[in-house]
Amino acid sequence: MPYIRETIITTADKRGKVHIAPIGIIAERDGWIIAPFRPSVTLDNLAEVPFAVANYTDDARIFAGCLTGRRDWPTVPVDGFPVPRLAAALAHSVLAVESISDDSVRPRHFCRVVQEETHAPFTGFNRARAAVLELAILVSRLNMLPREKIDAEIAYLSIAIEKTAGPEEKEAWNWLMQKVTEHITAGNDTHSARD
Amino acid sequence: MPYIRETIITTADKRGKVHIAPIGIIAERDGWIIAPFRPSVTLDNLAEVPFAVANYTDDARIFAGCLTGRRDWPTVPVDGFPVPRLAAALAHSVLAVESISDDSVRPRHFCRVVQEETHAPFTGFNRARAAVLELAILVSRLNMLPREKIDAEIAYLSIAIEKTAGPEEKEAWNWLMQKVTEHITAGNDTHSARD
Repeated sequence: MPYIRETIITTADKRGKVHIAPIGIIAERDGWIIAPFRPSVTLDNLAEVPFAVANYTDDARIFAGCLTGRRDWPTVPVDGFPVPRLAAALAHSVLAVESISDDSVRPRHFCRVVQEETHAPFTGFNRARAAVLELAILVSRLNMLPREKIDAEIAYLSIAIEKTAGPEEKEAWNWLMQKVTEHITAGNDTHSARD
Repeated sequence: MPYIRETIITTADKRGKVHIAPIGIIAERDGWIIAPFRPSVTLDNLAEVPFAVANYTDDARIFAGCLTGRRDWPTVPVDGFPVPRLAAALAHSVLAVESISDDSVRPRHFCRVVQEETHAPFTGFNRARAAVLELAILVSRLNMLPREKIDAEIAYLSIAIEKTAGPEEKEAWNWLMQKVTEHITAGNDTHSARD
């Protein structure tokens, strides 16, 4: 499998309404593939305005927020392009859609980088941020996973939270854990369903 | 527990001989704690030259390399300070030791940031890099862990490697996995010892 950057993608519709979504962009040749699910606002926006900004942020709250109804993160215009970047981006790439391979699930948009900029320094890996990102991926797949797997992954990931999280990572973790609790109490619990 | 940045720490002795080591620095008040194990070259160097550079790199090979006998990563002088930075640092902080709380295991050096610089853009989270970092921590603790725990963690972490790694992350992963294999075949295998 190719290298994947976990980014927050900003897109806009013709009227300039901005949408932000966590999307992993896939390395291909000298560019990047964006493969948004069908249907999705990102897919519609790319059809209207064929530019996306890949925002490179290490703020775990944005990834967790997008999965828990908190999509309202500040954006900043990018000179010369119709799509803004996240204010919290440490750096960004503006991606121009060059070709599309259609697909019934995830149409692959091959993009080239047409502008890049650095905004703030990277301040080092943090294990808790990585754990929040993994929990976000888990939360996006709750309906596909058995309860044992959910419990085991959370037990493992929570170690990094306990050992290395600051207040922002704890906040992001708690947003996601609330989703997990809702999922379990709503009876979508394949473990107790089986018992 | 406080926020921890996973960094590569560069230090130097009085003669200018540089040492690099992966160390998590701990947020405290308006500074950072470096707590090197006793004995260690980092501890000796800080006693001779009370400066350290916290290198913020997302190159997983450096973390894996330091744990597998590959410590020779290029450095670059930092103007006005006796300790160089890593060439691969996306950014760095020069830390000046301000006070030391002695401890029989890990003396805590309270440091203040006296210089900071950005060198290259952050290019987004990558799950495989985070997995390599977790495997590096696992490898540093192999002697303390039962075989079942080692196997379970590797099975979990290898998913991110399969899905999102580029060639560099695979190389770093393989360096560490060789250590795991050596550990197991050397008979330091608490699972088979118990069986």
